[in-house]
Amino acid sequence: MTADALVLDPAAQDLLFREARTANTFSDEPVTDEQVQAIYDLVKYAPTSMNMQPLRVVLVRSAEARERLVSHMMDGNKEKTSKAPLVAILATDHEFHEEMPTQFPHFPQAKDTVFAERPVREAAGSFNASLQVGYFIIGVRAAGLAAGPMTGFDAEAINKDFFSDGEHSVLAVVNIGKPGENAWFPRSPRLSYDEVVTTV
Amino acid sequence: MTADALVLDPAAQDLLFREARTANTFSDEPVTDEQVQAIYDLVKYAPTSMNMQPLRVVLVRSAEARERLVSHMMDGNKEKTSKAPLVAILATDHEFHEEMPTQFPHFPQAKDTVFAERPVREAAGSFNASLQVGYFIIGVRAAGLAAGPMTGFDAEAINKDFFSDGEHSVLAVVNIGKPGENAWFPRSPRLSYDEVVTTV
Repeated sequence: MTADALVLDPAAQDLLFREARTANTFSDEPVTDEQVQAIYDLVKYAPTSMNMQPLRVVLVRSAEARERLVSHMMDGNKEKTSKAPLVAILATDHEFHEEMPTQFPHFPQAKDTVFAERPVREAAGSFNASLQVGYFIIGVRAAGLAAGPMTGFDAEAINKDFFSDGEHSVLAVVNIGKPGENAWFPRSPRLSYDEVVTTV
Repeated sequence: MTADALVLDPAAQDLLFREARTANTFSDEPVTDEQVQAIYDLVKYAPTSMNMQPLRVVLVRSAEARERLVSHMMDGNKEKTSKAPLVAILATDHEFHEEMPTQFPHFPQAKDTVFAERPVREAAGSFNASLQVGYFIIGVRAAGLAAGPMTGFDAEAINKDFFSDGEHSVLAVVNIGKPGENAWFPRSPRLSYDEVVTTV
């Protein structure tokens, strides 16, 4: 039993990974701002390159904004996006370098040297914000909530509709809440260790 | 105290996020294959789009391979990469779609339709493998080990040297082990909730 090689408590392993599932239906119980703040205040500590923290989160709470978002989702994602207690848009802020003088005080010049050019910021920003999407999903589970991360949407339409500055790119839309009835599909298989890990 | 809004045990919160730090030095204690297998067998359950699981991991165990890898790292990363008990190369496999008929049985045609074209696979693969890099870092911490994820390297050289098929792109190189003396820099600040999260 390889789980014995881990230090993390087995109940926490189950909560975050083994028993956590992508939910497709949700109960009516609301997700509070306090819960989202607790999630953020936990996962903000996970690492990014040069502490750049390019992830931005938009909580879609108004009925009007929810309707606009649902219109940009692929058909198979519309119903659950319209019904989830909370929906979050997770995006890369391509202007993350503006924060680097305070966030990476070891090298405050990074803003105007390494990250002066937009293509460099896009590549580094989207990789690191993607790491942060992974951390955020784990954080939702740490709050005892189910996450329903989705990538099936019209990204250009969401960017235009929710980020009028042209400096943000959506990475994922995440439904959040307590699971409802028949919330899960049967779990799909996973690649085995030997299919993924090699040694040289 | 927003941590009260979380269900995850506070000790687990500390282990994975609050007290975990990116290590820059390591002890001599080896990292076993059993530990890596336990890490993989935990984090493999975290979600990817359509269960695509594009991450591949190369454990650099031989002195000869370690030397080659170190030669591709940026100067500031060479010493720790040469001294860490274990170094892993984390990469996207752009041929992940070959596994989809078994891994995503709901839609076995995905391999030859949605993901038939390489540019689509590159975009979806690199986003999802990046999520998996985030999960992997959390998994290293779940094993009671420190991770030292790095992006400062010659990516083209690593791809050429370690993935001769031309179908893999390195995302991160991660040093793994028990922290050594003076393993951490002082923790850099984090963006506040209000700087990252907005509501519409």
